[in-house]
Amino acid sequence: MKLYWYRLQERLEHLRANKLFETFVIGVIIASALLIGAKTYEESSRFDQVLVWLDRAVTLFFLFEILVRMAAEKRLLNFFRSGWNIFDFIIVVASLVPINDSEMVLVARLLRVFRVLRLVSMVPELRMLLAALVKSIPRMGYVALLMFIIFYIYAAIGSFMFNDIDPVLWGNITIAMLTLFRVATFEDWTDVMYATMDTYPYSWVFYLTFIFLTAFVFLNMMIGIVLDVMQKESAAQQLESGQGEVAEVHWMREQMVMMAEQLNRIESKLEPEKDRVE
Amino acid sequence: MKLYWYRLQERLEHLRANKLFETFVIGVIIASALLIGAKTYEESSRFDQVLVWLDRAVTLFFLFEILVRMAAEKRLLNFFRSGWNIFDFIIVVASLVPINDSEMVLVARLLRVFRVLRLVSMVPELRMLLAALVKSIPRMGYVALLMFIIFYIYAAIGSFMFNDIDPVLWGNITIAMLTLFRVATFEDWTDVMYATMDTYPYSWVFYLTFIFLTAFVFLNMMIGIVLDVMQKESAAQQLESGQGEVAEVHWMREQMVMMAEQLNRIESKLEPEKDRVE
Amino acid sequence: MKLYWYRLQERLEHLRANKLFETFVIGVIIASALLIGAKTYEESSRFDQVLVWLDRAVTLFFLFEILVRMAAEKRLLNFFRSGWNIFDFIIVVASLVPINDSEMVLVARLLRVFRVLRLVSMVPELRMLLAALVKSIPRMGYVALLMFIIFYIYAAIGSFMFNDIDPVLWGNITIAMLTLFRVATFEDWTDVMYATMDTYPYSWVFYLTFIFLTAFVFLNMMIGIVLDVMQKESAAQQLESGQGEVAEVHWMREQMVMMAEQLNRIESKLEPEKDRVE
Amino acid sequence: MKLYWYRLQERLEHLRANKLFETFVIGVIIASALLIGAKTYEESSRFDQVLVWLDRAVTLFFLFEILVRMAAEKRLLNFFRSGWNIFDFIIVVASLVPINDSEMVLVARLLRVFRVLRLVSMVPELRMLLAALVKSIPRMGYVALLMFIIFYIYAAIGSFMFNDIDPVLWGNITIAMLTLFRVATFEDWTDVMYATMDTYPYSWVFYLTFIFLTAFVFLNMMIGIVLDVMQKESAAQQLESGQGEVAEVHWMREQMVMMAEQLNRIESKLEPEKDRVE
Repeated sequence: MKLYWYRLQERLEHLRANKLFETFVIGVIIASALLIGAKTYEESSRFDQVLVWLDRAVTLFFLFEILVRMAAEKRLLNFFRSGWNIFDFIIVVASLVPINDSEMVLVARLLRVFRVLRLVSMVPELRMLLAALVKSIPRMGYVALLMFIIFYIYAAIGSFMFNDIDPVLWGNITIAMLTLFRVATFEDWTDVMYATMDTYPYSWVFYLTFIFLTAFVFLNMMIGIVLDVMQKESAAQQLESGQGEVAEVHWMREQMVMMAEQLNRIESKLEPEKDRVE
Repeated sequence: MKLYWYRLQERLEHLRANKLFETFVIGVIIASALLIGAKTYEESSRFDQVLVWLDRAVTLFFLFEILVRMAAEKRLLNFFRSGWNIFDFIIVVASLVPINDSEMVLVARLLRVFRVLRLVSMVPELRMLLAALVKSIPRMGYVALLMFIIFYIYAAIGSFMFNDIDPVLWGNITIAMLTLFRVATFEDWTDVMYATMDTYPYSWVFYLTFIFLTAFVFLNMMIGIVLDVMQKESAAQQLESGQGEVAEVHWMREQMVMMAEQLNRIESKLEPEKDRVE
Repeated sequence: MKLYWYRLQERLEHLRANKLFETFVIGVIIASALLIGAKTYEESSRFDQVLVWLDRAVTLFFLFEILVRMAAEKRLLNFFRSGWNIFDFIIVVASLVPINDSEMVLVARLLRVFRVLRLVSMVPELRMLLAALVKSIPRMGYVALLMFIIFYIYAAIGSFMFNDIDPVLWGNITIAMLTLFRVATFEDWTDVMYATMDTYPYSWVFYLTFIFLTAFVFLNMMIGIVLDVMQKESAAQQLESGQGEVAEVHWMREQMVMMAEQLNRIESKLEPEKDRVE
Repeated sequence: MKLYWYRLQERLEHLRANKLFETFVIGVIIASALLIGAKTYEESSRFDQVLVWLDRAVTLFFLFEILVRMAAEKRLLNFFRSGWNIFDFIIVVASLVPINDSEMVLVARLLRVFRVLRLVSMVPELRMLLAALVKSIPRMGYVALLMFIIFYIYAAIGSFMFNDIDPVLWGNITIAMLTLFRVATFEDWTDVMYATMDTYPYSWVFYLTFIFLTAFVFLNMMIGIVLDVMQKESAAQQLESGQGEVAEVHWMREQMVMMAEQLNRIESKLEPEKDRVE
């Protein structure tokens, strides 16, 4: 019995590593994405039954695929070590829960939408890209905090002063921050400004200082990221390729150590000779 | 007869390589571009007949020019080796097809518009520039795919949730993606947001996360391109000019190899001497 | 008596340096920021009395904290050496002034808003960031002046020519500059243009040259900042880490000085030997 | 008589080089700029007579200043060697022409506005900045041409297809290019698109390809400029400061030439010795 299990597991491991199987899984994910897209068309109601059956087929295949991957692991715990596996597991299991309640239909639909993210978990290049993006978040930390403080202060001032003019835009600090974000994206910001300039003719100072401040801080943030990425990239390239100026300098450094030793040897050879002659 | 053909071919080759002929061809292309522009003015209807004759003259000249270039080749197949030649050939041949059908008038007009692109095929600098642009597309591949996935997921969510609010903007997944592209360009995005905020007061989360995600991924894409271009440019510059720091380091490396050999010679000369003395 | 004072001062110094006390101060600042935010909500009027008492508590705590920091200094003058301390002092003292006058309520509120900036003065990383931002202002000086001249000239022309068309947008040079800033941010700039194009059909030249000029100068400004930051950053990194290509080159330079000396020694050792032999 | 002239010229030269005189000229230019600004205010009509007299005073002072600068030159022709001097001369002379014709009032006003540009000709830093800006134009040449071709082709297609939908936006190729520039700046571009999508539902392809193409080409243009500026800046810095990695590498290269010579000397000293011993 156990031997049989081992054999099955070996086969499943082969299946999981199989390029064709992987491509097929990616194909099913794309198909499920297209299914989601198709459902948004009104004409799709005619094929409603077909779509439901296709959806069930996709769900079952995903269940099968995740079971294969779980069984292929020597120990089940290894499977849950990877964040992406946990993500896949939740998506698959959650979509198994039967939904009769009409209120839960939206949740079920969203779950099916998140299945598209499985594409990221399947394609290694996308997984690496996402990891790199996530890694670049902390380096923006304090600048983002400073930006938030600027937004908060301006939102507080704005909601104190302009609340009576337009409560829809300046009603409370949350709405005011949203309005300021709109101003920062230059989206009809002059409409916002002209409305307050009727009451406070000098309120353009408020908007212009805000725009200059946020643009300025954002520019610094962007430069910071560019700098950071550039230095890391070039350092990684040095280690990998072993070519270019940096590699030549490194070779020269090592060569110099050898030359220094050789010169020492030459000097020491001249030393005793001199002694002997004297 | 054959000799006569060789002589003609030689002359045609000279003609093709002639700078004046090239300039004249470019002039005719620009004239044809101006013709296209002139036709868009209503006042041009008075000169309709003139424009038709001018257009025929341009078409005939283009036919003559392409025949010259084809005949100038030793073997006709060589002509079709270049993508630009094939492009020129299609444009010229297609504009020869007589058009009586009124529905085809639009196609004929578009063909004449694409003649302007012949300017790119004639000016080498533009051809190089376009080749460089095309070459830079693949390096954006996976980031563009990730961007598409983000758009697809948000469009699916958007068309599920906001379809009832405004079917013109969120009717199906294609329209929703177009709306999201509009949001990404900050074009009246608050109008879209305010409309959905009436029903779902927290739908600003949807828009803000989307804007941050796309801006973030786009920023990374841009930095990636900048980095890539910079490294390639500086590497190309190294190989060409042979000047600057990189060239000096390269010279030093070669010099060092020679110095190491010389030191070896010096050491070996000291070695036997020492032996002899002992 | 004096001894007692010294002991107290020592304790206050300990308190000021205490990480827990610092965290608590930051907590109170954040709480005061939330208080300001809470007041902007209409529902907050029910808790009006609570908010007033909380505000007083915050004011008193800030007074206590600044007194601790002042007393902890050996000499009071040292306290006022730091710009941030002066800023803190003004904020705290100004919020002690009792306000009965209804006109002064706005000023009092603004003062409370600026308390949020004390977060910047408390967190060293934010203080460093702000110092870096302020430092980067002068390097934009002349470009900003050039930009201002461009704005001024276009505003003068605009207000001379378009004043009769729309005095709200082009009434005087200040308003015209604001309108031009709007055009520079692409905010409904075509509305402004189409209005003037009815009278002056070629006024699009005015807008397009303005957009190209400002975009061009802005681009140069941005590149200038990027360059400046990059060079300073990499120089700072060199000095700190002592790693990478720059450090290797520096090591080689020093090594070379030593090698040159050794070669001199070797040459001089060969010199007398030769003399002796002769 | 001639001696008297030389003495005067010497004095004028001193005056021209005088820092105080220069500052005064800049002050007058700023005053004339403020005059222009003041005239745009409606309230200024009360001080109309004062403004006219002030304007005359400024004109006379500018005449005096340019005569001083012309007289200070050894040969008058030298004065007209500098482009900035010619610019100053034209501005000053043109503003001397008496204007009675009401139609010429606008020209006169514009001339007075261009006086502000004399600030650029007076401040050396601004003159250098402008020279740098002008120098950076040619490096964008072919990319700008490619951009123009893209605009032209899309404008031709647009005015052929969308002319019937909205002749105000697509009436002829010039207007269509203006509309496309508006689309490129994202200014209410969806309004333009939605209007044409009613007739041609797939016309979003037209807009999206256009936006991607222009954004892509613009990005490459920007990177090109950044690269160009960076390389020139760092090269200039190398030559000037003589510090940093590049300088160290340069020093090492020279040191190496000396070391190679020394090694040659050492080897040649060992050579004859060996001969003699044998």
